[in-house]
Amino acid sequence: MSRNNLVDMSKQAPDLQRVVSDITDEMRQRSERGAVATYIPELARVDAKSFGLVVIDAAGNVAASGDCDQPFSIQSVSKVFTLTLALGKVGDRLWQRVGREPSGSPFNSIVQLEFERGKPRNPFINAGAIAVTDVILSGNRPREALGEIVRFIRLLADDPSISIDEAVAASEQRTGYRNFALANYMKSFGVLDNAVETALGVYFHQCAIAMSCRQLAMAGRFLAFLGRDPSTGHSIVKPERARRINAIMLTCGHYDGSGEFAYRVGLPGKSGVGGGILAVAPGKGSIAVWSPGLDTAGNSHLGTIALEALSNRLGWSVFGQLS
Amino acid sequence: MSRNNLVDMSKQAPDLQRVVSDITDEMRQRSERGAVATYIPELARVDAKSFGLVVIDAAGNVAASGDCDQPFSIQSVSKVFTLTLALGKVGDRLWQRVGREPSGSPFNSIVQLEFERGKPRNPFINAGAIAVTDVILSGNRPREALGEIVRFIRLLADDPSISIDEAVAASEQRTGYRNFALANYMKSFGVLDNAVETALGVYFHQCAIAMSCRQLAMAGRFLAFLGRDPSTGHSIVKPERARRINAIMLTCGHYDGSGEFAYRVGLPGKSGVGGGILAVAPGKGSIAVWSPGLDTAGNSHLGTIALEALSNRLGWSVFGQLS
Amino acid sequence: MSRNNLVDMSKQAPDLQRVVSDITDEMRQRSERGAVATYIPELARVDAKSFGLVVIDAAGNVAASGDCDQPFSIQSVSKVFTLTLALGKVGDRLWQRVGREPSGSPFNSIVQLEFERGKPRNPFINAGAIAVTDVILSGNRPREALGEIVRFIRLLADDPSISIDEAVAASEQRTGYRNFALANYMKSFGVLDNAVETALGVYFHQCAIAMSCRQLAMAGRFLAFLGRDPSTGHSIVKPERARRINAIMLTCGHYDGSGEFAYRVGLPGKSGVGGGILAVAPGKGSIAVWSPGLDTAGNSHLGTIALEALSNRLGWSVFGQLS
Amino acid sequence: MSRNNLVDMSKQAPDLQRVVSDITDEMRQRSERGAVATYIPELARVDAKSFGLVVIDAAGNVAASGDCDQPFSIQSVSKVFTLTLALGKVGDRLWQRVGREPSGSPFNSIVQLEFERGKPRNPFINAGAIAVTDVILSGNRPREALGEIVRFIRLLADDPSISIDEAVAASEQRTGYRNFALANYMKSFGVLDNAVETALGVYFHQCAIAMSCRQLAMAGRFLAFLGRDPSTGHSIVKPERARRINAIMLTCGHYDGSGEFAYRVGLPGKSGVGGGILAVAPGKGSIAVWSPGLDTAGNSHLGTIALEALSNRLGWSVFGQLS
Repeated sequence: MSRNNLVDMSKQAPDLQRVVSDITDEMRQRSERGAVATYIPELARVDAKSFGLVVIDAAGNVAASGDCDQPFSIQSVSKVFTLTLALGKVGDRLWQRVGREPSGSPFNSIVQLEFERGKPRNPFINAGAIAVTDVILSGNRPREALGEIVRFIRLLADDPSISIDEAVAASEQRTGYRNFALANYMKSFGVLDNAVETALGVYFHQCAIAMSCRQLAMAGRFLAFLGRDPSTGHSIVKPERARRINAIMLTCGHYDGSGEFAYRVGLPGKSGVGGGILAVAPGKGSIAVWSPGLDTAGNSHLGTIALEALSNRLGWSVFGQLS
Repeated sequence: MSRNNLVDMSKQAPDLQRVVSDITDEMRQRSERGAVATYIPELARVDAKSFGLVVIDAAGNVAASGDCDQPFSIQSVSKVFTLTLALGKVGDRLWQRVGREPSGSPFNSIVQLEFERGKPRNPFINAGAIAVTDVILSGNRPREALGEIVRFIRLLADDPSISIDEAVAASEQRTGYRNFALANYMKSFGVLDNAVETALGVYFHQCAIAMSCRQLAMAGRFLAFLGRDPSTGHSIVKPERARRINAIMLTCGHYDGSGEFAYRVGLPGKSGVGGGILAVAPGKGSIAVWSPGLDTAGNSHLGTIALEALSNRLGWSVFGQLS
Repeated sequence: MSRNNLVDMSKQAPDLQRVVSDITDEMRQRSERGAVATYIPELARVDAKSFGLVVIDAAGNVAASGDCDQPFSIQSVSKVFTLTLALGKVGDRLWQRVGREPSGSPFNSIVQLEFERGKPRNPFINAGAIAVTDVILSGNRPREALGEIVRFIRLLADDPSISIDEAVAASEQRTGYRNFALANYMKSFGVLDNAVETALGVYFHQCAIAMSCRQLAMAGRFLAFLGRDPSTGHSIVKPERARRINAIMLTCGHYDGSGEFAYRVGLPGKSGVGGGILAVAPGKGSIAVWSPGLDTAGNSHLGTIALEALSNRLGWSVFGQLS
Repeated sequence: MSRNNLVDMSKQAPDLQRVVSDITDEMRQRSERGAVATYIPELARVDAKSFGLVVIDAAGNVAASGDCDQPFSIQSVSKVFTLTLALGKVGDRLWQRVGREPSGSPFNSIVQLEFERGKPRNPFINAGAIAVTDVILSGNRPREALGEIVRFIRLLADDPSISIDEAVAASEQRTGYRNFALANYMKSFGVLDNAVETALGVYFHQCAIAMSCRQLAMAGRFLAFLGRDPSTGHSIVKPERARRINAIMLTCGHYDGSGEFAYRVGLPGKSGVGGGILAVAPGKGSIAVWSPGLDTAGNSHLGTIALEALSNRLGWSVFGQLS
């Protein structure tokens, strides 16, 4: 198929910005916004009315709206980037440590770990993400591992200003008892190579990376476009790997609300308790949305509604596109 | 996008047949085939070496190979058709009875039912499918409900010869203790309206419908093409509903192997313990494969491998298509 | 120890009656009575204010008070008698089918069955009791098995008038979906030899046996006195077996309230949702209490309080007796 | 009952020593000894053939045999003493933090904690014991709390030489990931007042207390004799509290083998992974046995067999005594 993306998309670009702006306006008028996460004290300070939305299409057009340049704590969205790094490091051996099935459980459940002898169900529940970070750590000092993660995200976003919010990291370090429980539990089964404190230290810092919707949407492009940075043409990962990461995002990216997200939005996505969601429309675009209020499954309430609207209006669902 | 499907596909058609034939040859040479289901005695009699594969593209080209006209017991693949019927009957009210999240459990698990007070996690685990059949039954006599299901499948497949294998139905009725347990359990929570025996009677018969790969691929076209029968243009369901059924197939269609299927194949699909899988490539084609040997999660072993090869070679994964 | 029970107890007898009468008076003045079971419609018709208490000591003295001659549905108390019968029939082979550990779960939980492949944790949860009844059934017709159970209880109670309340049995047969679920689930693992309907038919009838506190206390004497009927000296079971049945009553006799009952009352006991409890003070006496209101664990609310008072005042706890 | 314990027991004493010696001889001849715990490296160094048995009766007679003066790591047997201390400190308020039901799960299960929001089922599973230690800690520094525990055990055993094996404590501190998981998990629900490291520091040290069978049997007398030290007549706890602790030992003292121990031995008891068991025959005697090999539930294999023999030969089962 000889479709010329550049031409196509330049025609589409004005529509894209209008759709993004319209949705932002509609979201701002909604009163029900979910509840801001309070279990990390630092996160509770954010303005609950914040809303940002950015879409970057195949031609590199950027449609942005709302608080699209305000950095927020990406939290679990970071798991997409560490998964990519760990796969680059150890390849399919990663799956000896972590499964890739939806968990049917909340993000911080420990029950599944007991039934499956310490092997987390997938890399996007907390336990799985800690195990992935442990893989990145191996052979490195914590500072180096963290540096590797941050540099990778800066590269993807083409923005060297991205950094870690140390206050958030320290807040999690002090209060993340559930994550300490998960990590110690896996350690008791030999799933972690490094000391629990070391692995969690890196994990809490990766979660505390602050990014704007614009930066996040930039960083997600390689997943939307078969592993390549579409502006430079550089290959980040092979097409097959990009597809597979998308598959895990679709089945596991929203904890115990992953089925709901697939049903309503129809796009691979990964949410964080900071209220951000990175969504990927393969071949079409990379999308980042941010609204801090969460639904009961821990996913951004307005963020999900906004993505549902966006996917519908642009016809971008992977489950059937209007053409 | 003004792509002319007919022209496109007629060019592609020869390739499609070659890909289908090649894969069939490769599968026939494999020695590891998984284990044929024996828990339903009638199913155990099938020839373990059977293999069939059919793909129907957007232009209506049919690429078929192997035992593609041999009817087999569709078993859980029937759940796609009853879900479609039930949504047509009661719409989104269906979701009050059945969830749409992956279960993180085997197909016949009862644990989840206890934790969630009798509400099945999704319409594709056994409990959920029984609840869906109960909805179709309501207000009808069993024979009528069953007739409705069979007529719907005949319509979709455009083949009035499709029928129920009564020996299989009787075999399940005699030995389906686990399903009786699930149904009674839901009944104790008031999730079923009809008598347990009645609901299960219809359910066992729907599972005992026998179809060939050709018939199954025909019947799945409406899901691949936005709810329409692409040959007649008739609308079976609205585009949105087709997309949503695809989403549930992708996240829940392979029991506790759904994540694995999404990861490897990248297409919405629904498997049955008879060894059949219906897979849907939105906008591209409807695919049916049959190989009776199952993997440990209860999905066709060679069927999955064949679909993985097909999706790779045709670039049909929903998670990133080569164009 | 040459303690002459007869002399001892005749001296104690007046006190025993006074203690029993006092406790009955105190219970009658309490307003909080728990909730009468409604899941079996016939049980819901009982007078919630009923209260009966009977103690029979080693000398055969009977202290009785309140509604002590009013028959009630013994329900799960019957499990003590069927366990005794089944052990008599197959001996320790019974433990291949049923465990003897507390379940840590409600009486009708099915979760444990899934984790332990259909083997019930103990003979006093519903699943375990159904498996025990299945053992009694084997080789018999249902009517014969039921006759054997009723005759055994009549023998123990020395009262040929004890019979089954057919209305209650029919009520359970119609509405006992949870028990049908449990039985079918076990059947799917091959734990039951007989047809599910047959085993449950006998089980529902044994639960529907109606007995008064006086009859129940009579029937429990063999457990209090090392397996013998103390009035006739006849041996019902060997001392070792009586002790072991008592052990199971203490650890498992009150479902997920067994620890609580041991802690507060300190006696082996078995409760039923009809509001009856049979308690055993080894070497001291056999006790039956009845009050239909249940606590959240499904055990008689006032019955437990009455037994706690009785055990305290008589110093009968097995965990340390005042002498 | 005016039974003079001293006279009675002096007559019984020669028999008691013979029974104890006989059983020790029999145990020494058995080849199947279970497996020594290796998860705490220091524990793995013990001689697997060690066997000690001590019984102290109501008259203060001590029957001892085998390695009865060899100190071993009491591990979870310490939980009986910390439970007693914590009840002394906060009384029944303790039960707001910890339940008193059998768990139906292994000693280190975390599943139950998730289902019951961080509240351990009973004080004898690891999570419950950590919560109990946290109560003793509150308001104290770790060193003081630990000193209080050690002094209490020395007082009970009337032996100031009892001390902590620091190598074992250090070994657990380094490798007790599962306990770190449990403690962090409870901390996340607010069940612990103190820092996780602090509570576990005290807990690991209490488990590392080394005692001989003689010391342990001495320390258990207050439970056998209604809360009193029978030699001095001093009251340690009220009779009611001694009975209740015995009740918890009987229903929960052997983890997921508690039902089995009650069934076979018929005495309240508490085991530790060091291979020790403290058993209590109310009104009769205090018993300590030690054999390091464990069965699959983590209880001393020969220790349980020895106690079964002892209970049978002396007729000491609480479930029916020969008189």
